[in-house]
Amino acid sequence: TRSKLPDVGTTIFTVIGQLSAQHKAVNLSQGAPNFSCDAGLVAGVTRAMEAGHNQYASMTGLHALKERIAEKVATLYGTQYDVDSEVLVTASASEGLYSAISGLVHPGDEVIYFEPSFDSYAPIVRLQGATPVAIKLTVPDFTINWDEVRAAITPKTRMIVINTPHNPSGQVFTLDDLIQLAAVTRNTDIIILSDEVYEHVVFDGQQHHGMATHPQLAERSVIVSSFGKTFHVTGWRVGYCVAPAELMDEICKVHQFLMFSADTPMQYAFAEHMRDPQTWLSLAAFYQRKRDLLQTLLADSPFHLLPSAGSFFMLADYSHFSDESDSEMVKRLITECGVATIPLSAFYTDGTDNKLIRLSFAKDETTLRAGAQALCRVK
Amino acid sequence: TRSKLPDVGTTIFTVIGQLSAQHKAVNLSQGAPNFSCDAGLVAGVTRAMEAGHNQYASMTGLHALKERIAEKVATLYGTQYDVDSEVLVTASASEGLYSAISGLVHPGDEVIYFEPSFDSYAPIVRLQGATPVAIKLTVPDFTINWDEVRAAITPKTRMIVINTPHNPSGQVFTLDDLIQLAAVTRNTDIIILSDEVYEHVVFDGQQHHGMATHPQLAERSVIVSSFGKTFHVTGWRVGYCVAPAELMDEICKVHQFLMFSADTPMQYAFAEHMRDPQTWLSLAAFYQRKRDLLQTLLADSPFHLLPSAGSFFMLADYSHFSDESDSEMVKRLITECGVATIPLSAFYTDGTDNKLIRLSFAKDETTLRAGAQALCRVK
Ligand SMILES: CSCCC(=O)C(=O)O
Ligand SMILES: CSCCC(=O)C(=O)O
Repeated sequence: TRSKLPDVGTTIFTVIGQLSAQHKAVNLSQGAPNFSCDAGLVAGVTRAMEAGHNQYASMTGLHALKERIAEKVATLYGTQYDVDSEVLVTASASEGLYSAISGLVHPGDEVIYFEPSFDSYAPIVRLQGATPVAIKLTVPDFTINWDEVRAAITPKTRMIVINTPHNPSGQVFTLDDLIQLAAVTRNTDIIILSDEVYEHVVFDGQQHHGMATHPQLAERSVIVSSFGKTFHVTGWRVGYCVAPAELMDEICKVHQFLMFSADTPMQYAFAEHMRDPQTWLSLAAFYQRKRDLLQTLLADSPFHLLPSAGSFFMLADYSHFSDESDSEMVKRLITECGVATIPLSAFYTDGTDNKLIRLSFAKDETTLRAGAQALCRVK
Repeated sequence: TRSKLPDVGTTIFTVIGQLSAQHKAVNLSQGAPNFSCDAGLVAGVTRAMEAGHNQYASMTGLHALKERIAEKVATLYGTQYDVDSEVLVTASASEGLYSAISGLVHPGDEVIYFEPSFDSYAPIVRLQGATPVAIKLTVPDFTINWDEVRAAITPKTRMIVINTPHNPSGQVFTLDDLIQLAAVTRNTDIIILSDEVYEHVVFDGQQHHGMATHPQLAERSVIVSSFGKTFHVTGWRVGYCVAPAELMDEICKVHQFLMFSADTPMQYAFAEHMRDPQTWLSLAAFYQRKRDLLQTLLADSPFHLLPSAGSFFMLADYSHFSDESDSEMVKRLITECGVATIPLSAFYTDGTDNKLIRLSFAKDETTLRAGAQALCRVK
């Protein structure tokens, strides 16, 4: 049958996950914790189910949860979103990204995004009959060259996709990035789609410079986040998005037919859990300890680690000891050393090979130790 | 902002749900149970969460659940689907319908569907840059005139959307419908998308004539079903689809970017629950009792009830006592009589008004009694 996405194969996370399982490798590949979530959260889901909250939630989400979301965003970042018209509970951040692009990007539009990149943005844009325009981040700093962005903007540019903290590089937006983004979009109708699923995972006392921290950017932004990433339950498939009502209306038109509503008992549990801001305020320190542990454990490995300023990820450079491609290196690490990582080349549509692999430190201490030990074995 | 779906407003289920809540009406509107699911199912979710199954499931679904699905379909309908390449667990039947249409329908294609219709098919088709072609079911029998289908097929026809048991009419496909559908699609590349979410809710000893019962149709069909409808948990957002591998490949390309994976603990619970075929085999008798009760209770009402052969729904005719439009009648029933139903006109893109309203009998006995009493009050 004719394919709408002829170039898309199995996602790298599935490929590596299977190979890793097959070889019983220590898994530092996916950005998913292998440790427990808070027991109170599990109890909250059980309570909701037992109280009979098992049928369709309202289309835009449970009101109590939308209130918590709006409060959190207002408190942390200063932008007020109207609970009834500007907050949407989605069935995962993935669904939020999809509904936003599908609702807002028209055939023939161009969408600028930055590579290396999470693998879903470009295919979703292509499914709309629109053109993804990739701009490469600088290497090895993984920053945006704003002159390139200015040069890439055309009258057809409908959207710019931002992701901070950044998967896979671990870099974060600076205040200057926000100022530059505001400048390049001023006097345009360009919409910003901001993937901020790691918003609470910013290290070394830095601030998260998300779109809701900048009033002019917030006005044109759809911000997507994830309860799975924040509360250690990536399998629960609940996220949210916030956007000005005019944009949200169009996103909801897709969401209502694509998903209708997100999981009801999980929404109840998150609404209860979010009464305590420590549940997200504690996350940065929690993951910083994991980052620091992995860095320490890899000090004697042959890899050169690139600094990670946020997210669940750091990059490791092997250019000085091997000229294998990223995927050859990753394959060898799984099969010979027993540790799974992700080749950075998988995050480029043109397969750019920078001699870098991505490590996920969203793992318990035992796994980080075992993974590091395996990484030290490589030659 | 430019809209991709300028004609789409708030879905009728949200509109009626809000009006109903506002007037504290008895709710016979949405196809969602207001009674409990099996306690074992709730316990299964809790067990899965406590066992730590809270992270991403594999992209196509939990293997054990896919095995149960393939077994069920093979046993009931005779078609074998390969667990690894032809079964997909989706985050709701809605997501399955969306991923199937989005993966398989190209810009410029035509998609035939039947009205009155569940409200998502046409907008999803439109979002692909394709053209929904509505064929009206006969009134008051709600059957397909196959000559009209033959006449509507063009070289651009990519897909025919089937829904049996049918929402909103409560009618079901006959063996003759299957034979006719096989005949009109023979020697074409037309794909059948079959929404069979009420597959286990067929009354009066009739069989479900789904696509998997007919080998030639199965070869070109994507069948979508729902655990929410079958196990009384519409808020848990898990469904599935089965299709030949060649079609499934394209559906998965969308699913992997749209959703990545469905809810993990719920998948574990369904896999366990599905060990006992009675969980679905008992459903027809369960809902038949509800249908019969509502029919009996409405015997003295001014409405003429149309027969319901399956699904959660029956239609009620008021043409002999009022010339109000369907939505006027529904509004009056909510505000004056305290009972919420859905106007059949909402299931037609052109608002066709047949003087019919849709009643959902997926409600506990108290609600059915209170709703019937309210319906008897109308003049
Ligand atoms: C839906 S896959 C999630 C993304 C992620 O976890 C990763 O980049 O590893
Ligand atoms: C996602 S809305 C579900 C459809 C339904 O329940 C109905 O038709 O009432």
